[in-house]
Amino acid sequence: MLNPFFKNHGPFKISELIKSIGLNIQNLNSNHEIHDIKDLSSSNENDITFYHSKKYRDVAQKTEALYCLTNEVLKNDLPERCTPLIVKNVLVSTSKITSIFYPESINDDFDETVLTVNDTEFVSKVIFGKNVLIGKNVSIGSNCKIGHNTIIEKNVNIGDNCSIGSNNIIRNTIIKNNVKILDNCVIGKHGFGFFPSKDKNLRYPHIGVVLINENCEIGCGATIDRGSMSNTIIGRNTYLDNQIHIAHNVKIGENSIIAGQVGIAGSSIIGNNVKIGGQAGISGHLKIGNNVEIGGGSGVIRNIPDNTKVMGYPAKNIREFLRDNK
Amino acid sequence: MLNPFFKNHGPFKISELIKSIGLNIQNLNSNHEIHDIKDLSSSNENDITFYHSKKYRDVAQKTEALYCLTNEVLKNDLPERCTPLIVKNVLVSTSKITSIFYPESINDDFDETVLTVNDTEFVSKVIFGKNVLIGKNVSIGSNCKIGHNTIIEKNVNIGDNCSIGSNNIIRNTIIKNNVKILDNCVIGKHGFGFFPSKDKNLRYPHIGVVLINENCEIGCGATIDRGSMSNTIIGRNTYLDNQIHIAHNVKIGENSIIAGQVGIAGSSIIGNNVKIGGQAGISGHLKIGNNVEIGGGSGVIRNIPDNTKVMGYPAKNIREFLRDNK
Amino acid sequence: MLNPFFKNHGPFKISELIKSIGLNIQNLNSNHEIHDIKDLSSSNENDITFYHSKKYRDVAQKTEALYCLTNEVLKNDLPERCTPLIVKNVLVSTSKITSIFYPESINDDFDETVLTVNDTEFVSKVIFGKNVLIGKNVSIGSNCKIGHNTIIEKNVNIGDNCSIGSNNIIRNTIIKNNVKILDNCVIGKHGFGFFPSKDKNLRYPHIGVVLINENCEIGCGATIDRGSMSNTIIGRNTYLDNQIHIAHNVKIGENSIIAGQVGIAGSSIIGNNVKIGGQAGISGHLKIGNNVEIGGGSGVIRNIPDNTKVMGYPAKNIREFLRDNK
Repeated sequence: MLNPFFKNHGPFKISELIKSIGLNIQNLNSNHEIHDIKDLSSSNENDITFYHSKKYRDVAQKTEALYCLTNEVLKNDLPERCTPLIVKNVLVSTSKITSIFYPESINDDFDETVLTVNDTEFVSKVIFGKNVLIGKNVSIGSNCKIGHNTIIEKNVNIGDNCSIGSNNIIRNTIIKNNVKILDNCVIGKHGFGFFPSKDKNLRYPHIGVVLINENCEIGCGATIDRGSMSNTIIGRNTYLDNQIHIAHNVKIGENSIIAGQVGIAGSSIIGNNVKIGGQAGISGHLKIGNNVEIGGGSGVIRNIPDNTKVMGYPAKNIREFLRDNK
Repeated sequence: MLNPFFKNHGPFKISELIKSIGLNIQNLNSNHEIHDIKDLSSSNENDITFYHSKKYRDVAQKTEALYCLTNEVLKNDLPERCTPLIVKNVLVSTSKITSIFYPESINDDFDETVLTVNDTEFVSKVIFGKNVLIGKNVSIGSNCKIGHNTIIEKNVNIGDNCSIGSNNIIRNTIIKNNVKILDNCVIGKHGFGFFPSKDKNLRYPHIGVVLINENCEIGCGATIDRGSMSNTIIGRNTYLDNQIHIAHNVKIGENSIIAGQVGIAGSSIIGNNVKIGGQAGISGHLKIGNNVEIGGGSGVIRNIPDNTKVMGYPAKNIREFLRDNK
Repeated sequence: MLNPFFKNHGPFKISELIKSIGLNIQNLNSNHEIHDIKDLSSSNENDITFYHSKKYRDVAQKTEALYCLTNEVLKNDLPERCTPLIVKNVLVSTSKITSIFYPESINDDFDETVLTVNDTEFVSKVIFGKNVLIGKNVSIGSNCKIGHNTIIEKNVNIGDNCSIGSNNIIRNTIIKNNVKILDNCVIGKHGFGFFPSKDKNLRYPHIGVVLINENCEIGCGATIDRGSMSNTIIGRNTYLDNQIHIAHNVKIGENSIIAGQVGIAGSSIIGNNVKIGGQAGISGHLKIGNNVEIGGGSGVIRNIPDNTKVMGYPAKNIREFLRDNK
């Protein structure tokens, strides 16, 4: 399951859903109940789906969903059983309907439901600092420490033997065993994902979580955003230095080492045993292979194959970089 | 008005003012009362002004101020009615006198005057987290939320429907309606402005504010410094990602999108509909036009005209950048 | 003395020490008491030392220590009186034994021993905000201010006339007179130093402190890590802007000015009167001379001699940079 935390508020009648995006379609069985919104391949006859790009034509032709958000051009690829719901912007409408099923995924206001730890079950089980707050739907394993002023907001699972420092804010996050988080981090907020619009940008839902695997260490001042339609993942025994920014949907492999002030943009995938020098930046939607070394200050704008050392902006093979900059 | 918050402690006798900067001028009507310190063009006969660069010769010749901080070379440009006050360093003396009129503008120690929100008028009006502190001279509109441990120090106006997260520190700031500020931000502190001096640097006053317009979103870990002699401004519906630094006097237009870890140095002006990729940096005192796109990691050291896409360090036209880096 | 804070838990019998690293050596006077672990030149007959690189051959030949962690190749350089302790990885074993002498240096969990300031001697002496916490072994001079939610953890000396803002976390740090620290900083945590290991990285001890000299100013969101085997030092009257990262063992001279978002990697040494522009990065183990100017956004990967202006990535002479980028 993508996210064990956000409750699906469905089912909703199809008539309610299409009304919410401003559609008015005749001849619709308006009482048909829709249970979820899913992508073309995983949806079934109780779901609504969306089709916004020819790239997905093959799966569109086979979708089992009976309703599909799409546009005039693409609608003809859908099977006959599937009613096309023609909208101006497929992804905007998809966001709106996702928000209806998962309203918690769109709200990143501070968590009003937290209690001071003294009023929770954890008071006798965990070593806590002063002024620690705990939200709903939180679990904490044995032998954990949580520092002063840290706020464990709703929807957080913490494993055993974890050391969490002070002034952290964590929500929508799964932390495995033996993880260390230093101070001043914000983990599990929504990412920087929205549809620009002149009057008021439209945020899209982030229904993913942050998953931090065993033995990781997260330095001071990190921001790690949860995923939008998938999870943000830090692999086992990967260490992050201070002031690092990990955007939504990023996946980092195991045993990697990431130095201070590095930034990784949305949806990039980093392999195992990767070393990234200080202040390096990695653009979005890239694939960085295993055993890659990226020099400090580099700006990576292309995929990098396994077992490669790169440096520069744009990053290139390190031998080339050093030769060009003698 | 530049800043509705800092009280002008004037008027002061001209004799007090010149004594404070170590001058001793004969034949001065020492009881003349001075009401404010202003620039050459906006000052009138009750103000003191300053003239430190030939660039301003035209306005210097027409100033209505009767006293002007300047040097031996420039003094001859002043009109006869204006008494030149010859000092070693015009800007240092200007700072000292500004500090006398606006002493609050030079003090950025923590705000001792805050109260816990339960002891303020806001307790029944705003949705607050735990341990929220509110300073003097604060207003908050309807339907606002303010998260745990956030400190609204003195001199803050917050509009309606604002969502402010946890662990923020805000002072000397005007926040319009529908603004969202995430967590761990510091907004409205003085900028990094001072006169270097071997024994002890001399900070100059920051009498401006931070102005955040309607519908903006400010990401986690932002630092936005207030202006020195003007305001720092974020335009309507502009979104900032995490870990962004906005220096003093920067002005950003409307509908702009600024990705993670970007830094904008002092006094630069950014247009409307500008997109800035992650980790890009913009030097001080630059003008970036409307509809500009700046690639991630770029270092911008020159002005950029409207409707231009740039990338690189130093940033150049993106086609040129891509061609040079095939 | 390197660090006045971490208690030496010795002496230990040599038999205990070698057992801790998995050695079993015959013919050893197992009751010999070892008082400390020191480097080759400063150790005497009561200490254990370590020799891991031919670079140190000259001092190895003269060491007065009677026990030395080393390997099969290097052991022959040691004097006859010194018993070589042959280990697989000299630095890993050195770390383990250092941790035995200085166990506090390896533990950077949050400080459980802090008290709310109202329960300390400082309540009547210092101007404090709300929710301020003070650890053991803390001294604070006269005329100091400490802002809301700031945590002065154990092992901190603060001089006179210091202004410390809100939401800071400070440990293992010496702060001299007239220092100003703004908000949201983390100062004195261990650095990003560890031995990578597939199952679980091994952190090495950080027995140094952070030393911030007179008249310094530290901007918002700084992270300044304490040294591993030496101290991290900020020189007198040096000013740091917001969001700066200073890694372990870095030494910065006097009267230097460092703009926003700069990062300095471990063990680099920066001279006096140095100016570093925003977002510049300096690699580890470099020497930057006096009166150097480093342009904003630069990536410095080589030493820089005195009185030099550089810019670019990699940073080069600024005239060359500007000529190449006309």
